Amino acid sequence: MAEDFVVTPWEVSGEIDYGKLVKEFGLTPMDDLPKAFTDNLLFRRKKVFAHRDFSKILSAMKERKPFVMMTGLMPTGKFHIGHAVLARQMIFYQSLGAKLYVAVADIEAFHARGQSLEESRRIAVEEYLLNYIALGLKPERCEIYFQSDRSSDAKRAIAYYRLQNLLAKHATFNEFKAVYGAVSPGKMVAALLQAADMLHPQLPEFEGVVPVVVPVGTDQDPHLRLARDLASRTKSHHFTTLASTYHVFVPGLGGGKMSSSDEHSFIALTDTPKEMERKVKKYAFSGGRESVDEHRKHGGNPDVDVAFQYLTFFEEDDGKLAKIRHDYTSGKLLSGEMKAILIETLNAFLAEHQRKRELARHRLHEYLATPEEFAPHKRKR
Amino acid sequence: MAEDFVVTPWEVSGEIDYGKLVKEFGLTPMDDLPKAFTDNLLFRRKKVFAHRDFSKILSAMKERKPFVMMTGLMPTGKFHIGHAVLARQMIFYQSLGAKLYVAVADIEAFHARGQSLEESRRIAVEEYLLNYIALGLKPERCEIYFQSDRSSDAKRAIAYYRLQNLLAKHATFNEFKAVYGAVSPGKMVAALLQAADMLHPQLPEFEGVVPVVVPVGTDQDPHLRLARDLASRTKSHHFTTLASTYHVFVPGLGGGKMSSSDEHSFIALTDTPKEMERKVKKYAFSGGRESVDEHRKHGGNPDVDVAFQYLTFFEEDDGKLAKIRHDYTSGKLLSGEMKAILIETLNAFLAEHQRKRELARHRLHEYLATPEEFAPHKRKR
Repeated sequence: MAEDFVVTPWEVSGEIDYGKLVKEFGLTPMDDLPKAFTDNLLFRRKKVFAHRDFSKILSAMKERKPFVMMTGLMPTGKFHIGHAVLARQMIFYQSLGAKLYVAVADIEAFHARGQSLEESRRIAVEEYLLNYIALGLKPERCEIYFQSDRSSDAKRAIAYYRLQNLLAKHATFNEFKAVYGAVSPGKMVAALLQAADMLHPQLPEFEGVVPVVVPVGTDQDPHLRLARDLASRTKSHHFTTLASTYHVFVPGLGGGKMSSSDEHSFIALTDTPKEMERKVKKYAFSGGRESVDEHRKHGGNPDVDVAFQYLTFFEEDDGKLAKIRHDYTSGKLLSGEMKAILIETLNAFLAEHQRKRELARHRLHEYLATPEEFAPHKRKR
Repeated sequence: MAEDFVVTPWEVSGEIDYGKLVKEFGLTPMDDLPKAFTDNLLFRRKKVFAHRDFSKILSAMKERKPFVMMTGLMPTGKFHIGHAVLARQMIFYQSLGAKLYVAVADIEAFHARGQSLEESRRIAVEEYLLNYIALGLKPERCEIYFQSDRSSDAKRAIAYYRLQNLLAKHATFNEFKAVYGAVSPGKMVAALLQAADMLHPQLPEFEGVVPVVVPVGTDQDPHLRLARDLASRTKSHHFTTLASTYHVFVPGLGGGKMSSSDEHSFIALTDTPKEMERKVKKYAFSGGRESVDEHRKHGGNPDVDVAFQYLTFFEEDDGKLAKIRHDYTSGKLLSGEMKAILIETLNAFLAEHQRKRELARHRLHEYLATPEEFAPHKRKR
């Protein structure tokens, strides 16, 4: 079934064969995880399916040594359920004792999308931070920063930008092309800053040398490889090799990639129950048969049914999920009924989430590396 | 006489026709200066011979408005009398009321020369800062900083590196080639940082929009043009167009460019009187005739006589200098005697300078933007 698919930082298309990706990218399948991980549905259900050097993280946990989870966000568009899946990983790692570093890639958005820093800041707060907090992110051991405004501590800020500048020594233009397809001075500084995002937690001004894990979709692997390569060529500081994990893409409503630039493809965490219901009914690709009779006779295909796929992310109960799958495959459960189950599940989730989201607003400053810069009326730029 | 000469950031050779340079580079000759300038021998004797947009500085002075003189230093090799001439301009501008910004280009030295930040810091202090202070640089309204360590104030530091990152949007790879001949990621970030060096004094975190003058040799003009162009394309901040002045090169002892990488070409400000005397006698190109008889009959050529050229920088008294020139041209003064005059002049200068230089050591912290980072025993990196 899976024939042609493309997974690069600038294109994700086709039906993705994750087994093939693991081989092509030289990743290691995610096996033999301790119970702390398999208790989490994303790991138990292989939503996080592969890694590089993840043993560094497992060792640190075992030895009760510090480790860091680093991730970045591109502050464009709506925060959708695809983003929520990464947010859940962040919160999960925090529960395991990781320190979190979260980069708001406003310099990258400036160069790649022509978006002003002010607009990036607004979107980062409204779409990302409020949702992170509502989803359960804790302010302790969590540092959320803007690439354009790293820290209110000068030594830390300087160490970060210094690293960006020094890393340039070890890069070639061709490597940047591998990450961005085409290269421009703007994209190049953004790529260097992104490498600094992943590596700077290990500087003495931050955590010192610690294992760092970066959870990404496979389309982001070239960024990881670039950062790993630059780190390995750096002589002035010894970096522990970056660990990374790879998660499946949450499918878009139509079955492709969920994209914040196509509003028919996503369910946003700020969608009203009505909007969500309308989108699921109208756009969610169904794995059902052409007629009720056909469906009753041959059963539906849950593996391509987007509503069922979403339930694999949002229905915690394995038994319940297995029963839904069984009933769908056997033809007992119709497509409309599958969608109704999802709508009910998401309704409960969104109602609770949106209530928490409004409560989150007054706590933003607890999370930011430059809190005094947060309040819009205090900003001069 | 002047036929082939090359003046680019990576090569200066041949006998330079400054008149031709003014035309080719589109500079404006330095004329009609107020008395404050012509009191200074560098301006009076047209050592500073051309400019761009210098009227912005003259207007600011006239209206008693603030202005900035910005310069940079590449911390490699010995501080020689060529550097001293630029230092004298710095000190002169300070006396006119300018605020000074002095960038130690340690990131550039890292990328262009492979020199570590630690080595750059050592050379910057030992070779540059101590000599600046001994030459009379005042700590008031003077900020000396390392590119890798901009400020102990986080907002300022961030504003500087943010500018570097944002300026990348407005540059092309070809423009970097014009500045550096060949381009690499390292040289590119260094070029962006240099543009930020010239422009950041105008940011709200620093002086706000003020006229800034950058005194350079003509070989550095491509750097200026790049910074001017990037500034003009920046929409998020309005920069006043950079002003720049162009000074002649202090000739090397052999007549070419004085270069810290060729120790037969320069007199260092740390040379002992004996070393200086030996170098002048052995290496200083003479404008004298082949024999004493010939010299007495036809006279020497002060315009190519390096000892005389140095006197035009170090002998303050115009009358005395004119007499030396006259006596040399007429044949009354021999080449050896010309050298003896220079040696006596430099001896007095170096003796006084070196005494002051040792006194300068304990005052370094008054000058640095990150003073707490200065003392080597306090540094962790």
